[in-house]
Amino acid sequence: MRVLGIDPGLLHTGWAVVDSVGTRRHYVASGVILPKTSAPLAERLAVIFRGVSDLCEQFSPDVCSIEITFVNQNPRTTLILGHARAAAIVAVANRDIPIYEYEPNKIKKALTSAGHADKDQVYKMVRMLLPGANPKTSDESDAIAIALAHTNMARFGL
Amino acid sequence: MRVLGIDPGLLHTGWAVVDSVGTRRHYVASGVILPKTSAPLAERLAVIFRGVSDLCEQFSPDVCSIEITFVNQNPRTTLILGHARAAAIVAVANRDIPIYEYEPNKIKKALTSAGHADKDQVYKMVRMLLPGANPKTSDESDAIAIALAHTNMARFGL
Repeated sequence: MRVLGIDPGLLHTGWAVVDSVGTRRHYVASGVILPKTSAPLAERLAVIFRGVSDLCEQFSPDVCSIEITFVNQNPRTTLILGHARAAAIVAVANRDIPIYEYEPNKIKKALTSAGHADKDQVYKMVRMLLPGANPKTSDESDAIAIALAHTNMARFGL
Repeated sequence: MRVLGIDPGLLHTGWAVVDSVGTRRHYVASGVILPKTSAPLAERLAVIFRGVSDLCEQFSPDVCSIEITFVNQNPRTTLILGHARAAAIVAVANRDIPIYEYEPNKIKKALTSAGHADKDQVYKMVRMLLPGANPKTSDESDAIAIALAHTNMARFGL
C-alpha cells in the first residue's frame, strides 16, 4: 500500500509518500509545497491544488492520509487552514483516491505513544521508524508522521 | 463581461451567470450544486469542485465573484464553509479566471442600499434588477446578487 501523507497549510503544505508492505515501511519521497506568500488567496490555493494533483500523478498513491483540523484559539487562522486543507483534499478526491482523516493527537499517539508529543519528538520517531527519511522541515516531518500513522492504523484496523 | 457569482456552502452551493454590457445586465443562467448529504466531506468537496469546473467550461466566465467568509458565532460551521468555499475557488483559480471577493454587507449594499438586507429583500431586488431571473432558492438568489454586485463594483471602480 502506498500512502500520501499531507500536512496542509497556506504557507507550507508538507507531503510524504510512504510504502507499507506487511510490517515494513519504506520511505519514497517527501517535500513541501510553498505558495508565494505575496500571491492572493485564490492563487495560493491553486498552487496547493496543482501541487497535490502532480504528486498523485507522479506517485499514484493508493490512499491519502490527512490531519483533521480543529477550531483553535484563532478562528481566523483556522478558517484559512480549512481553505488550504480543502485545496489539498479536492486534488486527491477528484482522482477518486480514498482519504483518511485523523485527529492530530491520534497521529502523534500512533508514533510516539503520547498524544501531546512536540514536533521534535515526532521528528525523532520519524527518523527512527523510517531510516531513509531525512525531513528538512517540521512540515515534511509531520507529513511523514501522518503517512506512517495511517500505515499503523490500517494494520491494526484502528 | 460575463460574471460567475458563487454562494458557496457544503449543503448547497448557489451559482449564477450574469452578462454585463455597459449599463445593462442580462441573466444567463443560475442553479444550485447539491452534494449528497450522506457522502463524506472529501466527496462533497469534489462534487463542488467538479460542478464549478463544469460551469467554467460551459459558460466561459471572464471573472468570478464570491463572498468573503467571516468567522461567525459557530467556528465549526465557519470551518466547514471555508472548505466548501475553497473547493469552488480552486476550480475557478485552476483555470486562471480572476476572482473577486466581497464582504456580504457590501454585496447587499450594492443591491439594496442596506448592508443588512435579509434574504427576501435580496430576492426582490434580484427580480427587479434582472427580470429574466427567477431563482427558486435563496442560494440561487444570493449567487445572482453576488454576480450583480460585481458588475456594479466593476462599473464604479469600487
